[in-house]
This record gives sequence, C-alpha cells and structure tokens, in this order.
Amino acid sequence: MSAQMNRQWRLAARPVGNIKESDFEMTEQPLVSLDEGQLLVRNLYLSLDPTNRIWVSEADSYLPPVGIGEVMRGIAIGVVEQSRDPQFKEGTNVQGMFGWQDYAVTDGAGLSVLPDTPAVPLTAYFGLFGHVGLTAYFGLLDIGKPQAGETLVVSAAAGATGSLVGQIGKIKGCRVVGIAGGAEKCRWLTEELGFDAAIDYKSGSVLDGLKQHCPAGVDVNFENVGGEILDAVLGVINNRARIVLCGLISQYNAVKPPPGPYHFGNILVRRARVEGFIVLDYLPRAAEAFADLGRWLTEGKIKYRVDEVAGLENAPQALNKLFEGKNVGKLVVKL
Amino acid sequence: MSAQMNRQWRLAARPVGNIKESDFEMTEQPLVSLDEGQLLVRNLYLSLDPTNRIWVSEADSYLPPVGIGEVMRGIAIGVVEQSRDPQFKEGTNVQGMFGWQDYAVTDGAGLSVLPDTPAVPLTAYFGLFGHVGLTAYFGLLDIGKPQAGETLVVSAAAGATGSLVGQIGKIKGCRVVGIAGGAEKCRWLTEELGFDAAIDYKSGSVLDGLKQHCPAGVDVNFENVGGEILDAVLGVINNRARIVLCGLISQYNAVKPPPGPYHFGNILVRRARVEGFIVLDYLPRAAEAFADLGRWLTEGKIKYRVDEVAGLENAPQALNKLFEGKNVGKLVVKL
Repeated sequence: MSAQMNRQWRLAARPVGNIKESDFEMTEQPLVSLDEGQLLVRNLYLSLDPTNRIWVSEADSYLPPVGIGEVMRGIAIGVVEQSRDPQFKEGTNVQGMFGWQDYAVTDGAGLSVLPDTPAVPLTAYFGLFGHVGLTAYFGLLDIGKPQAGETLVVSAAAGATGSLVGQIGKIKGCRVVGIAGGAEKCRWLTEELGFDAAIDYKSGSVLDGLKQHCPAGVDVNFENVGGEILDAVLGVINNRARIVLCGLISQYNAVKPPPGPYHFGNILVRRARVEGFIVLDYLPRAAEAFADLGRWLTEGKIKYRVDEVAGLENAPQALNKLFEGKNVGKLVVKL
Repeated sequence: MSAQMNRQWRLAARPVGNIKESDFEMTEQPLVSLDEGQLLVRNLYLSLDPTNRIWVSEADSYLPPVGIGEVMRGIAIGVVEQSRDPQFKEGTNVQGMFGWQDYAVTDGAGLSVLPDTPAVPLTAYFGLFGHVGLTAYFGLLDIGKPQAGETLVVSAAAGATGSLVGQIGKIKGCRVVGIAGGAEKCRWLTEELGFDAAIDYKSGSVLDGLKQHCPAGVDVNFENVGGEILDAVLGVINNRARIVLCGLISQYNAVKPPPGPYHFGNILVRRARVEGFIVLDYLPRAAEAFADLGRWLTEGKIKYRVDEVAGLENAPQALNKLFEGKNVGKLVVKL
C-alpha cells in the first residue's frame, strides 16, 4: 500500500504588490508515521484572512514572517484522522494553525477541539464563533466602546468582520454607517443586516457620503481599510472619537510604504484615540464573546455569510479576492 | 487729560507658511470707560505657544479661528487697573485670554486670580503652575500612563512642555530620552534635567539615536513635533505603546496638508494607542496637578526655564522662535 500523499502550498517568493500564484509553490510528499503525542489532522477548511498578506511580507509584525520554502501559515479546521495522544480521539473536529496543506501533523499545541453541535456549520468556527467573531466583538466593544446614540462607521463593511461589527453596533444602539464597494454589497448591509446607511466607495466621494449619512459626526470608526477611506473618516470625527485600527487592507499590497492619513492632525484637535487591535490578545476571553454572539444569533439579531471557494489548489488566487473587494462575508477554502 | 492709548496686534491676513510680521497689524486706540461689571486689565506678560499658530489658520480646530481684523488671541497675565466688579480688586494679578494688547477690557469670564505668593515669579503661572504644567502633567500621566521601568521618549524636549514631561517621567521611574535640536539643548536635558539621553535631531538620524538610546524599545511617546520625528519613534514602539499627541509643531506652518506617519501601520501591529490631548479639557482638575508640581519643585526635582522677549511690538516675530527651535523653556513676552 502506497503512503498517503500530502499537498502543501509553500511560500516560494516574497510577494511584491499583489500576490501572484508564482509566489507559492505546491509540493507533494508522502505522509510519515506519527510519533508518540502527535496527531494527524486532515484539513477540511482553510480560513483566508487579510492578515495572511502580512504574514508573507518580510516586515516586522505581530508574528514572525513565513519563511521562504515553509508551508503557508493558515488557520484551518480539520478532523483528527490518527492520534497518538490520548487527549484527542480520532474523528474529532479541531481548529488550529494547520497551514495550507491537505494534512497537518501536530503535537496539539494551540489546537482547539470544536463542539459537537451539528446545527452549527464548521465554517462558523472561523466566523461568528472564531477569530472573526472575537475580532468584531472585542475590537468594537473593548476598544471602540460605542455608546447608544453614537454614530459608528465601519469600513470593509461587507467583509466577514465588518458585517458583524455593524450588527453588534446596532444591538448596542448606535447609528451604523458602512463603507463597502458596489451597490449590491451596500444593499445587503442596509436591507438585510439593518445598517442605517451604506456608502459605496466605488460610486462617489466617501467624504461626501459620510457628511450626508453621519449628520452628527463620527464617534466610533472600526477601521479595516486605511488609506483614503480612513482619511475621509478622520475628517469628520467628533471630539473623543475612537478609531479601532483592526486592518489596513488598502496598503498590505503596497510596494512602497504608503503615507499615514493626511488628517492625522485631527486626532489631536479632536482628542481622538486610535488604537491597534490584534485578536490573539483576546483569545483568553473568547467564552465571553461567544456567549453573547450565540445568543444574538439565536435571537435573529445577527446574520452572516460564508464565501466558499473549492479546492486547496485555489487558495493563492482566492486570497486576492480579499484585496480586490470580491468577497462578501467570510472567505474560506473547502478542501 | 488725554485718554490712555491701547496698542493691539490684530490679525491682518491668514498666514501662509511661516508667520510674517505683515500677517499682523498693530493698531492703537484710546481706552474707553468701563461698564458696570467690567475690568480693565493691564497686560504684564503674554504667553507664546505653538498652538497660537493653529488659532490663526482657518482650519476647523478646537477653538474657532481668530478672525481677520480681530485682536490676536493669547493667554496673558495682567494686573487689574480699574474694576467695576466688586469681586475683583484693583491691583490683583489675574490670568486670562486677554490677547495681544497693552490693555484688555473683560467681564471676568474665564479669568483666574493669581495667588499672592511673592516667591513665585508671575511667568510661572504660564509654565509650571499654568497651562504648560497641566499639559505636561495630565498629558503624560493621564494619557501616557508611564510605568516605572518603561522607556519614555519626548520630542521638543527642551521646550516648555517637553522639559517638564521628561522630568516627571524621571520622577515616575522611567528611562527618559529627549529629542531636541542642538548640542546645547541636549546637554541641558542630560546634565541639568536628569534625562537619561538626548538625541540631537540636527546632527544625525533620529531613528539611529532611538535604537541606540532605547535598547528596550519605546513604551510612551510624548509627541510635540510630528512629521519625521514621530515617524522615527513609531518605528521603534513596543507592544501597547502609548503616544500622547500633544503637538505637531513640524506641520503647523505647512502650506499643503502633510501626510501622516509612514509607520502608521505599526500602531496596528504593536496594538499601540495614539491619543490627542488638549489642555482645556483638564482645567477642572488643575489643583491636582499643581499640588504635585509644587511639591516636586520644592523638593528640587523639577527645574524650568523662561525665555523672555521684551516688548509687545516683538510678539509676532518672537512667535516664530517656537517653529525655528530657537527657544529653550517657556517663551513669554514681557510688556
């Protein structure tokens, strides 16, 4: 019997600008037998996230860069196929940093066992009950501290995180304005998710849209994009505004470091606060968030979408959807 | 008997770039008699502050712009020469927004009576016991929240605010590194004020200086300058760094809006916090600060300098000293 083969996407070159398929190389090798304490996980889903682009750049960041020749780092959900660790039974669904490959061999560090709840689709553990849910929940509530009656602006509002942030903002009593690309996304935000308004950055001036839809100014900005969009928002912030800096997707592909916002001085005169957010810091408090998010889901107050791409082989090109604004909701690859 | 004349500096034009003397016009007019409830204050000292430049630009700010033709706004210390308000006796020293003129007529709103403490020079009520002291104290302690053992970097460190900030940082047990222009200022910081190190931005790379003098990175940045200096600091911040955005003096004279810092993305990956500070918000808590500052002064833990320019007629050109890095300590005009 020949050994089972494992396909792996390895980083072949540091991307310059947009990710090209040649920046990754697919290799294939046979699985080897497990050592004591190890597990073999067969990946079922990969999570694609804007931060993946940070991981492949050489910049000093919150995690070390993926090395050239290494398997691409990625959060994945899989099933334990073989176990030499009595803590983990075969057949258990697990989540971890299993990488862009068919199978991962792991010693169980940093791995989490997923609840056996058939009503919850596995991909929800990337989204509402995963890092995206934690990002939206703690980023907005812990850093943004929205108060009822305040105006919340969310960029990349039709993305996995942004769409949740806006809905949580509505639950907390805010006026919620989303910024997204295209009429269809904007319609989804206002007609299905309950946003008060949506600004289509592809069809006009974001600043004009903000002035129109935020008549009382902006108190909280959940920022996923940066660049010109953040600059427009900084132009209309109120005193004591809070800017949750969660992502700067507009500049992850930049070849030269882009300048910071031209309205930077408004942070001073408006006594505003800009604060960076990395979800890893909040993992110990996950239960808090999931309790609220689960209740809101049951009460019909939260909806989410999954954007599913089929096949490990399509992972590199699927990642670019995030930077081209082509996804709606949580982007995953189904293996 | 002819009426007493009052010289007034009025804003003649919105400055473009550096302030020119022709942006102000000195007018002279006789004083008129007081109405019931009014005071006549003879100005003794004007406080010149970087924020004066903000007040004469047309940008939307934390105070309305000074109008063309209006007397230039300015904090001043004076003596009550005539009073038609029984609350204020003639001969009392007072501080208020009396403007760039020999005499101010005021109804007493926003005016504060200075303590009759001959040991304290009047100019200290602009500095240690005035808006500068409050700025340094609350900006550093309330926004920057320095902890013993952390590294604090202060820009414009030889200025009125910066020199106090660094000394308060030392009192709180921080490693304190100042950024200033010129060897003499740097020597003053390290040899007289007890800074651990000073970086002369005129004689080399600020980033290199920071790497050398902040071997454990930067935890708190008290920012008075912005531009390239802030950018260098953002390049070496630690996780959870706090940047107190108190001034952006490098860009107040800019003709076109300058870009924000190129290291803006580091705020995200380092989970840092950038927060704007305006001293007006802290006036109600002034007593708290002055109690500590007074004690530290008595204990010899704090020193300060006053940079005194003579003559109301020299106010406009003296203001430029702030932007040319030519002052050391608190800049005042003595009338």
